[in-house]
Amino acid sequence: MEFGDSSLTIAINACMSAAAFLICLNIIPKFSDMFIKANLYGIDLNKPVQNEKKKVPEALGVVCGAVFLATMFLFMPIPFYKQLAVNTPGKFPHHEYIHYLAALLSICCMVFLGFADDVLDLRWRHKLLLPTLASLPLLTVYFININSTTVIMPKQLRWLVGFDLNLGPLYYLYMGMLAVFCTNAINIHSGVNGLEVGQSCVISLSVLIFNFIEMQGEQRMGHVFSVYFMMPFLAVSLALLIHNWYPSRVFVGDTYCYFSGMTFAVVGILSHFSKTMLLFFIPQVINFIYSVPQLFHFIPCPRHRLPRLNVESGKLDISCTTYKTGSLSPIGQLCIRVFSLFRLITVRAGVGENGMYTQVNNLTLNNFILRLFGPLHERTLVLILLFIQIVCSCLAFSIRYQLAKMFYES
Amino acid sequence: MEFGDSSLTIAINACMSAAAFLICLNIIPKFSDMFIKANLYGIDLNKPVQNEKKKVPEALGVVCGAVFLATMFLFMPIPFYKQLAVNTPGKFPHHEYIHYLAALLSICCMVFLGFADDVLDLRWRHKLLLPTLASLPLLTVYFININSTTVIMPKQLRWLVGFDLNLGPLYYLYMGMLAVFCTNAINIHSGVNGLEVGQSCVISLSVLIFNFIEMQGEQRMGHVFSVYFMMPFLAVSLALLIHNWYPSRVFVGDTYCYFSGMTFAVVGILSHFSKTMLLFFIPQVINFIYSVPQLFHFIPCPRHRLPRLNVESGKLDISCTTYKTGSLSPIGQLCIRVFSLFRLITVRAGVGENGMYTQVNNLTLNNFILRLFGPLHERTLVLILLFIQIVCSCLAFSIRYQLAKMFYES
Repeated sequence: MEFGDSSLTIAINACMSAAAFLICLNIIPKFSDMFIKANLYGIDLNKPVQNEKKKVPEALGVVCGAVFLATMFLFMPIPFYKQLAVNTPGKFPHHEYIHYLAALLSICCMVFLGFADDVLDLRWRHKLLLPTLASLPLLTVYFININSTTVIMPKQLRWLVGFDLNLGPLYYLYMGMLAVFCTNAINIHSGVNGLEVGQSCVISLSVLIFNFIEMQGEQRMGHVFSVYFMMPFLAVSLALLIHNWYPSRVFVGDTYCYFSGMTFAVVGILSHFSKTMLLFFIPQVINFIYSVPQLFHFIPCPRHRLPRLNVESGKLDISCTTYKTGSLSPIGQLCIRVFSLFRLITVRAGVGENGMYTQVNNLTLNNFILRLFGPLHERTLVLILLFIQIVCSCLAFSIRYQLAKMFYES
Repeated sequence: MEFGDSSLTIAINACMSAAAFLICLNIIPKFSDMFIKANLYGIDLNKPVQNEKKKVPEALGVVCGAVFLATMFLFMPIPFYKQLAVNTPGKFPHHEYIHYLAALLSICCMVFLGFADDVLDLRWRHKLLLPTLASLPLLTVYFININSTTVIMPKQLRWLVGFDLNLGPLYYLYMGMLAVFCTNAINIHSGVNGLEVGQSCVISLSVLIFNFIEMQGEQRMGHVFSVYFMMPFLAVSLALLIHNWYPSRVFVGDTYCYFSGMTFAVVGILSHFSKTMLLFFIPQVINFIYSVPQLFHFIPCPRHRLPRLNVESGKLDISCTTYKTGSLSPIGQLCIRVFSLFRLITVRAGVGENGMYTQVNNLTLNNFILRLFGPLHERTLVLILLFIQIVCSCLAFSIRYQLAKMFYES
């Protein structure tokens, strides 16, 4: 067999993923009423007025998370079936098994935290503190089992720092921040029906392709481990996508974004390909950088930054933020100037009462696409955004396999 | 040192528990508004009318659970500080570390599930299925590391089955059911301010005493492990008790009951003293057995079975369930007859319209105490119930240390 024993367990994992897909597909609508009754619903802001009162159940990502966890709990003993069948004391590969436990512990914590956020509307400090705590078991296990904090330097820099550089504790800081970044990056690249789940499906599919390519290599076990997590994740996500696709019958909530981000972080860290994982996050990174002036409140940030519906045309327009002309901090002004220089934003001065206000489009990738293409139907917009995600994944593969040759030995 | 290295780590754990207590005590009131805003509140049914509209935030156990998990995440590396400091590859005691991860994974799942239940009002089938799934990682770890499924027989039975009996898979079934039992047993022994948390505090204190007694013995590591979990648990519970004590400013929710039950089950199973743990659950077992006819709907079971306030006296009376005389199933009739025979229930026939109905007190320990003592003030009732819990703990110790000698070698 090509991958040795793993091919059988991967096949079993695939079957269980298929079952998880069907279960999710089937139970999500059944849970919808329960969520509305519990006051967990939203109004779809980008739908015509006649729908405005329609309550769309929110935070259905929690159902996916629960089904994913249940699937993994049932699957977990399977890769160890041989050792379990014999169960000679002292022979069990505990060092492998703790990867599974630590990964699921971190993911479970994040699903829980995401759901608490959806229900309670947590503050920003909780949103940064808690993912950091949730990634602690992960980092401890990394320390125990892998503890590789050495980064190979590109050829061009070796004269300066040598062949490799041991980042030590900085590498742990980087991994801790990766978990926080992944969870929040997906959360802020959202606002259009199907976008959160759609992008997660594209990323997980890309990771799966990457894993299967690399499975013959040295790091085989790491990639098999990643496949075990990515297949059920993709399965439950696809089921959710079907219900969340335009026009959404359910919303996914912060729960899903946190669940999704943490699953990617866990897999990237424990399978030791976090840099490649980040390559699959190019659109999220771009969206994050573009959003920075609003996230840090250099430019006013309204609660919702999603594009807004033009009721007459039925298409989405860019949404804007407004501020009193001249009221921005020097950093805010600098941001506006730099972004204007590269024609990345639309600025309209002299609007509002007495023309004393300035309008800038909200700094999200969604709005940027609408600036580029003009008003679009919501479904078209999400298709374009997912197409970009796919193109970026192709780009990621060519960086990983082609461009990397320029900097590293093959 | 008396307990070797453990005394230092136990001291650190105690300090962290103290910190967790202060944090919980401090943040629970701060979160209260957030819970009410999220529609997570209840009305205290046993308070005079003028308070009837007062919203009491519900499910605050989730704050305790989160603080407990965060404390344990921070504490987890500490028992391994020596090995971590050296970190020789292959020398780390993975087999010990997985206990911590599996325990926290099961507890985290239950806190999450409990919170989902408080928010969404899950069905009974979820309440039985999900704890079973949540205990799977635990049972797997038990299988890998301990896998002792042999029960030593009492002397009096050895002529029949021999010195010991290997229960095999039945023992795993027993442990799986233990998790489901513990979580639900605390949940149904409730309904009076402070009872859920109060009983958990008594149980965890009893477990701690038991652990410190046994720490010199053979199973030392198991009891140290238990102490690591019980001290932070007791700390966050005491903080919650202060806010939940009569008159309650917060309710604990199913979240707390699930969190508490699972923590006990985890410690009992992984530290291998599940039978002693059950001894500390005597009042819960009695309450469960007494409740069986209502839980299985042989006798009608109203949504709330808590005692009801007599507004004039300000004291609590027994609450009753009513059914059409003669409408019970044969099993229901048998239950009534047996319970009446032992004078365990109050039955009043010929009530209601045309005297066609029969009234029976709701089958809970709370109501049983009220039958015994007559109407009581809510605070008095809860003090009596906690006193019973303490007496039963003393009884448990004497069974464990005295009565056991009759059946086993010392």
